[in-house]
Amino acid sequence: MSTDRITLRLQPGRDRRIKAGHPWAFSNEIAMTPAAKALPPGSVVRLEGDDGVKHGAFHFNPHSLIAARRLSADPEAACDAGWFRARLAEALALREKLFDAPHYRLVHAEADGLPGLVIDRYGDVLAMQANTAGMEAATPLIVEALTGLLGPRGIVARNDSAVRGLEGLAEETKLLHGDAAGTAVEENGRRFPVDLLGGQKTGWFFDQREHRARVSRLAAGASVLDAFCHTGGFGIGCAVAGAAKVTLLDRSEHALATAQQAAVLNGVADRVTTQRGEAMEALERMVGAGQRFGVVVTDPPAFAKTRKDQPAALRAYGKLARLAATLVERGGFLFIASCSHHVGPGEFADAVAWGVHRARREARILHMGGAGPDHPLHPMLPESQYLKGMLLHLP
Amino acid sequence: MSTDRITLRLQPGRDRRIKAGHPWAFSNEIAMTPAAKALPPGSVVRLEGDDGVKHGAFHFNPHSLIAARRLSADPEAACDAGWFRARLAEALALREKLFDAPHYRLVHAEADGLPGLVIDRYGDVLAMQANTAGMEAATPLIVEALTGLLGPRGIVARNDSAVRGLEGLAEETKLLHGDAAGTAVEENGRRFPVDLLGGQKTGWFFDQREHRARVSRLAAGASVLDAFCHTGGFGIGCAVAGAAKVTLLDRSEHALATAQQAAVLNGVADRVTTQRGEAMEALERMVGAGQRFGVVVTDPPAFAKTRKDQPAALRAYGKLARLAATLVERGGFLFIASCSHHVGPGEFADAVAWGVHRARREARILHMGGAGPDHPLHPMLPESQYLKGMLLHLP
Repeated sequence: MSTDRITLRLQPGRDRRIKAGHPWAFSNEIAMTPAAKALPPGSVVRLEGDDGVKHGAFHFNPHSLIAARRLSADPEAACDAGWFRARLAEALALREKLFDAPHYRLVHAEADGLPGLVIDRYGDVLAMQANTAGMEAATPLIVEALTGLLGPRGIVARNDSAVRGLEGLAEETKLLHGDAAGTAVEENGRRFPVDLLGGQKTGWFFDQREHRARVSRLAAGASVLDAFCHTGGFGIGCAVAGAAKVTLLDRSEHALATAQQAAVLNGVADRVTTQRGEAMEALERMVGAGQRFGVVVTDPPAFAKTRKDQPAALRAYGKLARLAATLVERGGFLFIASCSHHVGPGEFADAVAWGVHRARREARILHMGGAGPDHPLHPMLPESQYLKGMLLHLP
Repeated sequence: MSTDRITLRLQPGRDRRIKAGHPWAFSNEIAMTPAAKALPPGSVVRLEGDDGVKHGAFHFNPHSLIAARRLSADPEAACDAGWFRARLAEALALREKLFDAPHYRLVHAEADGLPGLVIDRYGDVLAMQANTAGMEAATPLIVEALTGLLGPRGIVARNDSAVRGLEGLAEETKLLHGDAAGTAVEENGRRFPVDLLGGQKTGWFFDQREHRARVSRLAAGASVLDAFCHTGGFGIGCAVAGAAKVTLLDRSEHALATAQQAAVLNGVADRVTTQRGEAMEALERMVGAGQRFGVVVTDPPAFAKTRKDQPAALRAYGKLARLAATLVERGGFLFIASCSHHVGPGEFADAVAWGVHRARREARILHMGGAGPDHPLHPMLPESQYLKGMLLHLP
């Protein structure tokens, strides 16, 4: 039993959500005693109801709206390196059941019992993101646990997420262990270089793995446009699957350079061309020029960063769907995605339907889905399913 | 130009939905002239707005709430056997791109431009369902078109859907062409006998194809319980994928006998046992007896047949989730599905979360999804996505 762990209490009548299995307590639900307010952000505390019911061990941040996040139903859980190692081993066992190769999101925060912690695995290199003061404070324990469990060549802190600001944490990217040179990701049998320490966000988005496989199965013989291509995951997957010609479009020269490397690495450089530009403007020009493709993929960054952005974001998704649908030849396919937390699946589907109709195209929705199974959801946080992908057939 | 085709008008101001691309007009939106009311159910009509805008050719039923369903944007579209053949050829071309073997839903109604028509393909045998008076009247044309396009050995009318009542049509099952003896379905490399003309509903549910593949990939070495197993699609798929032991549970002796045949056909009869009973009661007994399984599948018939049933259905899904989660051993998997139109995906996920919590189990949602791509959705009818499947990992 940890003697320096203090016990906090929920306000009277504010325990219903926690009792139903929700992993969070908000700051206005906790009795904010002077002792509580004085705790360093990221401390491990016990949390009890006003009725004395013990709700477990939590990471606590007195300065965050989400003040307490459950680590364990056991209030005395050690929460030391050994405890982290056991949680990580469980997350690892699941991924090893799901995937053949050691490339996946190893830890997806609350759903893996590690609130605020994200870890991506690229073979022998790990990239971790601590999105809470608790996980920031626990980083040395997590590095110790990861080193013991997996013996990685390198561990990188990719703490470049804006949500860290809500916890009073700065954004930064740094090496925590070993080295990360020459990192590459393997997915659906393809390889892509990943620059984890580069100046730009050029990691890898594991969440689209199943969508990339689904789209590439339709690409044989087709001309493909991959707009907002990042490092080319969709487009190069299509080229490997036999696409006749792939155009990669992105605003980032760095991302396109990495995509070119990936094209060479996968032996498809002769069928892949890159085009630098603002994707929405480039799509308008392509529409104007009467271009057509057998498969069009648009996987833009989040259009709605906050709830306030939502109406503008829906208009933007509608416009994107209109332009992209116009570019699809008869009998071709459109894949369009949204990673905006603040746009729900139904709203997104409506915006896409509107855009496709404005393009005067009939359409069948073949698939609507979220992130792959290495991005599990906590049953009480279904709203954390941010990714929405839609695959349409346009006769 | 068809001279016996009459033109109906929408009521003033009731054209907004149709103009936005929706494929239906409701009876209160159409000017119900004496001539309109006198039309035989299932007639092909032209539909215009009060502003004279032509909205295309529609199937019309003066006695149905959904009075008009769009066949074509062209008001003069022939809607004869040749026209049906062209639509069917387009649906076929898409399936041939999606699947290696000729076993799939060939036509999924509105999304395939054939409102109210469903056709399943089992190799050289086709099963069609006409859910509107229009498709009932067009059945000879459809049979002619199918025969010309695919030269099938047999075509069966599986008109055993309750929605036919809304169109004033009786339920019936009959042979329309050739014969259907010895029909079998091939899915994910497994074969299952399908009795299309039997006294009970023992067809095949193609909509769970991707879910069956997903679940079976987790089943190697596991003990599996397949509750509401029907003819064993999930359980036998798991056995073929290497499950140690599979228990199939269903109330129907006929379904279990077919499942036993399938077990023999797939060479896994030694690892498959059947148990006849009401699944919910049997699950309660298994919980009482302390039984545990590595993988539990529950794919019940719709609990909510009407909107009125919805609250009771949500309680039933919660109870089912509670019982099923209790039966999952630590580190095992639960797949639970709902095919109730009147239960939305969010409501279903909430009911499952409640049940899992009541079972005192932590859980990760690995996947939430709908029917496979041979069940496309019309962009204006996203609510027609009736199937909801959830795959959970229970540490």
